Amino acid sequence: KSGKPLRLKKGFDPSAPDIHLGHVVGLRKLRKLQDLGHQVVLIVGDWTAQIGDPSGRSATRPMLSAEEVMANAETYMAQLFKVVDKEKTEVRWQTEWFGNFTLADVIRLTSRFTVAQILKRDDFAKRYEADQPIAVTELLYPLLQAYDSTVVEADVEFGGTDQRFNNLLGRELQQMVGQRPQQVMLVPILVGTDGVQKMSKSLGNYIGVDEPPDDMYGKAMSISDDHIVNYFELLTDVPEEELGAFRSEMRQGSTNPMDLKKRLSRDLVSQFHGEREADEAQGHFEQVIQRREAPQDMPQLEISFGAPASGPNSDVVAVDGGGEIKVNVVKLVVQAGFAASSGEARRLLQQGAVQVAGRRLTADDVVVPVTPGTTLRVGNRRFIRIVDSG
Amino acid sequence: KSGKPLRLKKGFDPSAPDIHLGHVVGLRKLRKLQDLGHQVVLIVGDWTAQIGDPSGRSATRPMLSAEEVMANAETYMAQLFKVVDKEKTEVRWQTEWFGNFTLADVIRLTSRFTVAQILKRDDFAKRYEADQPIAVTELLYPLLQAYDSTVVEADVEFGGTDQRFNNLLGRELQQMVGQRPQQVMLVPILVGTDGVQKMSKSLGNYIGVDEPPDDMYGKAMSISDDHIVNYFELLTDVPEEELGAFRSEMRQGSTNPMDLKKRLSRDLVSQFHGEREADEAQGHFEQVIQRREAPQDMPQLEISFGAPASGPNSDVVAVDGGGEIKVNVVKLVVQAGFAASSGEARRLLQQGAVQVAGRRLTADDVVVPVTPGTTLRVGNRRFIRIVDSG
Repeated sequence: KSGKPLRLKKGFDPSAPDIHLGHVVGLRKLRKLQDLGHQVVLIVGDWTAQIGDPSGRSATRPMLSAEEVMANAETYMAQLFKVVDKEKTEVRWQTEWFGNFTLADVIRLTSRFTVAQILKRDDFAKRYEADQPIAVTELLYPLLQAYDSTVVEADVEFGGTDQRFNNLLGRELQQMVGQRPQQVMLVPILVGTDGVQKMSKSLGNYIGVDEPPDDMYGKAMSISDDHIVNYFELLTDVPEEELGAFRSEMRQGSTNPMDLKKRLSRDLVSQFHGEREADEAQGHFEQVIQRREAPQDMPQLEISFGAPASGPNSDVVAVDGGGEIKVNVVKLVVQAGFAASSGEARRLLQQGAVQVAGRRLTADDVVVPVTPGTTLRVGNRRFIRIVDSG
Repeated sequence: KSGKPLRLKKGFDPSAPDIHLGHVVGLRKLRKLQDLGHQVVLIVGDWTAQIGDPSGRSATRPMLSAEEVMANAETYMAQLFKVVDKEKTEVRWQTEWFGNFTLADVIRLTSRFTVAQILKRDDFAKRYEADQPIAVTELLYPLLQAYDSTVVEADVEFGGTDQRFNNLLGRELQQMVGQRPQQVMLVPILVGTDGVQKMSKSLGNYIGVDEPPDDMYGKAMSISDDHIVNYFELLTDVPEEELGAFRSEMRQGSTNPMDLKKRLSRDLVSQFHGEREADEAQGHFEQVIQRREAPQDMPQLEISFGAPASGPNSDVVAVDGGGEIKVNVVKLVVQAGFAASSGEARRLLQQGAVQVAGRRLTADDVVVPVTPGTTLRVGNRRFIRIVDSG
């Protein structure tokens, strides 16, 4: 109202540098406010990161090295500035103030808050009730975050609803030191691709902004029909009146949800990768998923058919007495990066998600023959081609 | 057992530099161990002092200035070394390690303990239960004290029973960093002059080692008969067999407790002031208290009888119309240092504890006439003589 640009504080945890669409919802709001002339202040939480995340899943983490923080911050900002305007962003590292924070500073800060006050935070209260350990260090987390607000003199702090408590503490501390207390802007929650829970990396129901175009397109196509319009609303510039039309078409069944989803997926891929990539991703999707064809290009896995026991990826190979080359599918799926562990690979096999040379395998098909050119397929979208390394 | 001298850690809170007989009980134990060849490590708690005392009466205190800490440490050590052997004492200031303590150090230290663990400490538990505020800072207190033990590699920590929890935390931290955990030596508690509660400055039932001989003697004479032998045991070198004799004489009523108390009081005064002072204090006691005479020497308060309204202590003077000089007794008692406030002085007056010129005053006698040489007496032992400043 005063015409003075607002300082919009946004924290970043460098132990989790990847941005997914759940974060993008808030970042888009920041961008809109930048376009109105306001200033984003990005806080690189290199100190809070080592304490543990606010939801307290992990107690304390090893301190990230300066190099790791730097690398993660680079990764994060490369993604962030796909949405947020770099020119109107001030980047501040907590090290600037916490690097020289003394015990006297800690004492001054901690004397302003009571244990009971901090233990009221939802997750702390639950853990304390349940006799789950809370490290003394964890009580410092919200205090340090609050301190950040005083240093950068934030007018508004952005955060998910799980940040509500921490943000309010920032308000309180600002008042104590004679600053105008920050407003708190809680970002709407985006439901993940499972259609049930909040999008979150740890739940595996996320779409990362750095995912390849095909994956991003495919994942966006997998969201449930119920959430299509919500995604449009929170993640695209489709105007409100058109959203209204979408809603009524969906309600009346006068549109094919698949068409709307394709438009959404195309929109998202072009935002984060570009128009051409969006076209290609759509083409790939239609060919591979809708028409169930193998894609034009797929990654290759080399096996030396001449000297299988000593060539590349020899650990996935089992040579038959008759000279036939076989592969251990469990190992192959892991090797291809389609499963994180043998256990997961075995489950995929049991679920019938694995095909070799177009044949759907069963739990018994662990060792199967291959020839140069054989394709391995896991699920709908993941392919790899076995080639002879010679 | 190993023949290696033990390191005996003793903390000192520089916000409370005065030593009373309750402390002396432990200091005598330290001295005995020094005489056996062990080493005392005195920790000047210039950092913990600012957080608040472990019993949590006060939340946080303003940080003492370096000068105040220095002055208090001098006061303390002048008293301490009346009991403890200076030559076998290593003095360490917390500033040595906490002066450069970083936020990273705080995080490392606090990550080793849980909130629940610290809140188990008796006084915290009670305050938390009763919804009384506990500053986050206060949780740091026992951790800093524990850290001290690791720095000085203490083998034994001395402390009152209220220090039990903090000392055990020190053991735990020492084990975590690979040191042999310290033993904890809890010092027996000395009952105060009220005969009921632990001797403590805040309860006013203490005898300070720096009190003038007459006061020390008089206060020691005021202890109840039940505790005489206990005082001998904890505070003097009277051998065990003689203590046994005292006990049976007391039980059989074959001794006058007053005689035993005189011996005790004499012993104490000579320990802290010397033989001659002990003789004089005993003489003073017998004259003033037992025979109810005024002492030979007493402090003086100057009033200018010639120009009462402008001379020294003119604020206690009320000049009568007839030229008679009167004093405001309430103000005079405060001025003489016999009461901390007008309220307390008024209470003394109401209780009949105040005499002027040998006459016991009542609550109505606030303004009474005086002449040069008039004595003011409060209670049994406190006197002041009004003199003419000319």
